[in-house]
Amino acid sequence: MTRMSLIVTGSIGIDTIDAPTGKAEDVLGGSAIYFAAAASFFGDVRLVAAVGDDFPDRHLDTFRHFNVNLDGLERRRNSRTFRWHGRYRDDMNQRDTLAVELNVLAEALPPVPQHYRDSRYVFLANTHPAGQIALLEHFPKAELVVADTMDLWIDNERETLLDLLRRVDGLVLNYEESFQLTGKSNAVVAAEAIHEMGPTFVVIKKGEHGSLLSYRGDDGHGLAALPAFAARDVVDPTGAGDTFAGGMLGYLAGEAGGEISLRSLRKAMALGTVVASYTIESFSLDRLKQITRGDLDGRLRSFCEMLTVD
Amino acid sequence: MTRMSLIVTGSIGIDTIDAPTGKAEDVLGGSAIYFAAAASFFGDVRLVAAVGDDFPDRHLDTFRHFNVNLDGLERRRNSRTFRWHGRYRDDMNQRDTLAVELNVLAEALPPVPQHYRDSRYVFLANTHPAGQIALLEHFPKAELVVADTMDLWIDNERETLLDLLRRVDGLVLNYEESFQLTGKSNAVVAAEAIHEMGPTFVVIKKGEHGSLLSYRGDDGHGLAALPAFAARDVVDPTGAGDTFAGGMLGYLAGEAGGEISLRSLRKAMALGTVVASYTIESFSLDRLKQITRGDLDGRLRSFCEMLTVD
Repeated sequence: MTRMSLIVTGSIGIDTIDAPTGKAEDVLGGSAIYFAAAASFFGDVRLVAAVGDDFPDRHLDTFRHFNVNLDGLERRRNSRTFRWHGRYRDDMNQRDTLAVELNVLAEALPPVPQHYRDSRYVFLANTHPAGQIALLEHFPKAELVVADTMDLWIDNERETLLDLLRRVDGLVLNYEESFQLTGKSNAVVAAEAIHEMGPTFVVIKKGEHGSLLSYRGDDGHGLAALPAFAARDVVDPTGAGDTFAGGMLGYLAGEAGGEISLRSLRKAMALGTVVASYTIESFSLDRLKQITRGDLDGRLRSFCEMLTVD
Repeated sequence: MTRMSLIVTGSIGIDTIDAPTGKAEDVLGGSAIYFAAAASFFGDVRLVAAVGDDFPDRHLDTFRHFNVNLDGLERRRNSRTFRWHGRYRDDMNQRDTLAVELNVLAEALPPVPQHYRDSRYVFLANTHPAGQIALLEHFPKAELVVADTMDLWIDNERETLLDLLRRVDGLVLNYEESFQLTGKSNAVVAAEAIHEMGPTFVVIKKGEHGSLLSYRGDDGHGLAALPAFAARDVVDPTGAGDTFAGGMLGYLAGEAGGEISLRSLRKAMALGTVVASYTIESFSLDRLKQITRGDLDGRLRSFCEMLTVD
């Protein structure tokens, strides 16, 4: 087991998903869960998150399948777990939120265990940017801090989000959100504007269209662009973005030994792409539970083959 | 000059383009023009198309800049050239047609010179599929036939289009059109359905999100996926898809010596991507007029670097 000192903070949810491919009721979800499961293929992962006393034991068993340290999981009495009910449309690239209950996410942040203070790699999964900043302060030894965000905070908490961006090394966000944050309408130009806000690297997630990286490090500047893994059997896209980020950070914190360069980031994106391609083959973490690190390497070879030009 | 026996049939237009980046009035456009200019970097290209007697001499001078044989260009008396007026929205990924005059495109097909009958590589740029079939019959020695099509024909001329698809080796079409043609909502599944209609290879163009290839040849089956060249200076996206196809077919008919394999198709897509990335840097053919084959190779290296995973 690789010792990674990688920590993720974020949400754990109980999801209900309606899709043209079927329905999943009260399954395990949430950004931190998807991230942690994906990153755990590369080593141990620490988790800081809260659930309510309604959280089913069977979901705890799922955690235990992955290399996720649960010391930072708070099971809060007299509170309820975050719940989300979404419906995918026929083309699976669009979804509508039918119901959302913030529950424990609307309360105090979960406590961070004292022995997590030495975490070197920190992923702040999407939540209120004030919460992300508050959590970050628990990790004074962080060498690499990456955050995710979303349209809601870009619109309603812009100043706080800009404060967060001054404190992170990397930002991961969706394609449309990159335009919303910057007022630009070209992904490369948007990434340049985000560099000016602080991050050394920006990863723009485009779902089925892949991802774009812009890097401005001390060792040079550059771009990377990767397609998604061309998949024919998409059952449930939920968690694709979070497992993409989990695969990326898992690789960077694990095998790459914390090296941040255009080369290590490209490889990280490719591994994130591959993990995400498994995620969407089933509901919740069902598919990720079935695979091993060796499967990831096999699909990585197929993926590289798809984009080899010689 | 490589002898390619590559012929393109399609439209020549006089375009007026409004974009956030500027306005271009009465410039040279049309699918066949963009294709031919792009393919001509790889060898000589034959063109079959018609214009009216309003066609300006200055546009003929532009043709002469490229290696395009004009024996099949009909300048029809008492007719007018196809005209298109489009406006790009702020985000440049959406455009509206403000005015279109079919003019000569609504009349008889242009005659095909007798000495073009030995053409081995045929690209049927987008037009009515009945016209594409009629033109194809002039090339009995064709070894590789590739067609482009569009939403209009998928909706209104489906049976004729299906007849065409039984006669071609390759089909090039837009992402949304692949769903429209097949009723599927996943690009890989849509490509499989299109193989059943006839083509050995299907290229799905996704604009700024790159392209996807599905190949079912005698030597094997496979997929290729490439991002677009990450560009920050997009002036006018008009012609990107046609020059992508022109770069692809130019390479296949030229340097690849007609070899059709997953490997040659991938390289062809990469070169098509690179030519298209130049096209959009200016209006009309302005940017393509400034570059050489050496520029394409240079940018191909940058492109491959962007997607190298090691």
